[in-house]
Amino acid sequence: MESDQNEFPMNGGDGKYSYYRNSSPQKWGLDSAKALIQEVIDENLDVKQLLSSSRRVLSIADLGCSVGPNTFFAVRHIIESIKLKSQSQGLPGSDPLEFQVFFNDHVTNDFNTLFKSLPSLDDRPYYTASVPGSFHGRLFPVDSVHFFHSSSSIQWLSKVPEEVVKKDSPACNEGKVYFTSSPREVEEAYGMQFSKDINSFLNARAVELVSGGLMVLIMVSVPPNGKCVLTELFDLLGSALMDLVSTGLVSEDKVDSFNLPMYIPTLEYLKGVIERNGQFKLERIESWLIPSNSDAESTVLNLRAGLEGLVKKHFGSEIVDKVFYQFEKKITDSCVLTNKDYKVPEVLFVTLKR
Amino acid sequence: MESDQNEFPMNGGDGKYSYYRNSSPQKWGLDSAKALIQEVIDENLDVKQLLSSSRRVLSIADLGCSVGPNTFFAVRHIIESIKLKSQSQGLPGSDPLEFQVFFNDHVTNDFNTLFKSLPSLDDRPYYTASVPGSFHGRLFPVDSVHFFHSSSSIQWLSKVPEEVVKKDSPACNEGKVYFTSSPREVEEAYGMQFSKDINSFLNARAVELVSGGLMVLIMVSVPPNGKCVLTELFDLLGSALMDLVSTGLVSEDKVDSFNLPMYIPTLEYLKGVIERNGQFKLERIESWLIPSNSDAESTVLNLRAGLEGLVKKHFGSEIVDKVFYQFEKKITDSCVLTNKDYKVPEVLFVTLKR
Repeated sequence: MESDQNEFPMNGGDGKYSYYRNSSPQKWGLDSAKALIQEVIDENLDVKQLLSSSRRVLSIADLGCSVGPNTFFAVRHIIESIKLKSQSQGLPGSDPLEFQVFFNDHVTNDFNTLFKSLPSLDDRPYYTASVPGSFHGRLFPVDSVHFFHSSSSIQWLSKVPEEVVKKDSPACNEGKVYFTSSPREVEEAYGMQFSKDINSFLNARAVELVSGGLMVLIMVSVPPNGKCVLTELFDLLGSALMDLVSTGLVSEDKVDSFNLPMYIPTLEYLKGVIERNGQFKLERIESWLIPSNSDAESTVLNLRAGLEGLVKKHFGSEIVDKVFYQFEKKITDSCVLTNKDYKVPEVLFVTLKR
Repeated sequence: MESDQNEFPMNGGDGKYSYYRNSSPQKWGLDSAKALIQEVIDENLDVKQLLSSSRRVLSIADLGCSVGPNTFFAVRHIIESIKLKSQSQGLPGSDPLEFQVFFNDHVTNDFNTLFKSLPSLDDRPYYTASVPGSFHGRLFPVDSVHFFHSSSSIQWLSKVPEEVVKKDSPACNEGKVYFTSSPREVEEAYGMQFSKDINSFLNARAVELVSGGLMVLIMVSVPPNGKCVLTELFDLLGSALMDLVSTGLVSEDKVDSFNLPMYIPTLEYLKGVIERNGQFKLERIESWLIPSNSDAESTVLNLRAGLEGLVKKHFGSEIVDKVFYQFEKKITDSCVLTNKDYKVPEVLFVTLKR
């Protein structure tokens, strides 16, 4: 049986806590990136050159697609932008372009829901395929993809850094789930894991992307200096869990061994990792502020859609509601969503060329 | 939302009645075809020529893959056979061949189970993708697949022929679910639907298969003359349903409007359809007997894995157990499984080249 070592699927189905219904901030990130995607395709993608080897079929892959609908908006926009560019290049000739879109996510992603929510054939100008597996390894044959897209995904680590859960390690992250206010060793362990994972990611894509192909990465990032709302929220999740320890609902050990397999970089940090990797030309990297959200309930719903699977796996499903209830209470009490000392996170937009 | 007009998925999951656990006759069909697949690849597939346009990546698609494990055995064997052939052609050079396998079935197929039961990466010499949708229409970009395989699938029709459920039609099939002992008009309506569907199937594949590519079709067929166990079983399913009418459990109208969207051809019939279509060169067509099975219980389990979805959709899930219980009783009482007047069905093996 296939099993990714570490799988953190978004909530499946389309119920109250599903990613399908609670991914509007991710959608906002995509929407705000729309104009940029069209711009980078216009400026950096030579469709004529790509088609010289592949005739009239272009392959697009969305990495970390989850279950929709955001992935459908994204690929539709990419295809429209490529069509515009190809028209401006005097393409296609007699035969129309054809597109094949690969939707990728972990093996445990709910692909059944993804497929059932696909736009109807009339409204879907591409052939569909899905690819299960971790994007930290190879997913596609050599030279087989023309355009990679990944939104709100590459912040996920392949695993929690091992030192972080070792009791006798200086990087042991007791009572916390992220390194927001942890010792420097914890942050370093996280940073090393992120660098390693991004390198694996880039090395795999470098083989799979055809020469001249593009990769657009969209993700959340933290501002360069000072406190950030998002990472502060992670600290509050840690506190909420510790509250449950004090009520006897979970053990302290259980909380100590729970950490988010996620790293939210600064723009400069990610840039450094990409440049040191050296497999791609960094065409563009920029960031902009995400509008603040002062509503604790919708903030929790959105984070829950992404984190519930982790919480359930580690603590058991019977406790999930209590965790997120306590988390929301912590957020409301802390006033972090309205406190101007905390900066909002940013959308980071990266364009890489092979 | 995407929805195939007519979807007849095999039973999902891996429970008692799942296709996953009840597809051994289909596995037997595949096993008995193994040597032939290797033979046709050796004789009819020019790997060197195929690679001249695609460099070192070959694409294989299994159409109607269901949830495994049969599809995994099939593609592994195809890949091994292609590797043998490429070695005999002095290939590959310095770079190893890479394979991309597309698993296709209806949108409602249980792809989550398929993905979870994929062989482990170490034991899977190919990149995986799945393609949801009806194989009676286009599924892949132009010239993008080198080898099509379809086993135990193309007997499924895109729909029950309309005349068969029209009350005032001479082809109305009252009290039966197939045309085994029905008026000639019913058989003709079924035959026309099958011809139409196979034509759609072949026309789509003709665009998708690269020049020089192969398509292997494996399916069940009925012997040319006389009664066949399999189609007699369909008649017994009709009788079982009529028994439930007499007990008041279902209405006669409900049974009259239920027909199997399936056509089991003779070798000659399928050959005629393929030749009239004319898009492919018929390299090979042959058939051999399926070993008889005199056990009513396993016969029902196997048929149930394929038919339960249809029965449930039409009659409601509360009645499914009763239908198959009555069906098994009918089979036992009829002695059809041991009666020598009924011929066993055959495996039909077809090789087409583009």
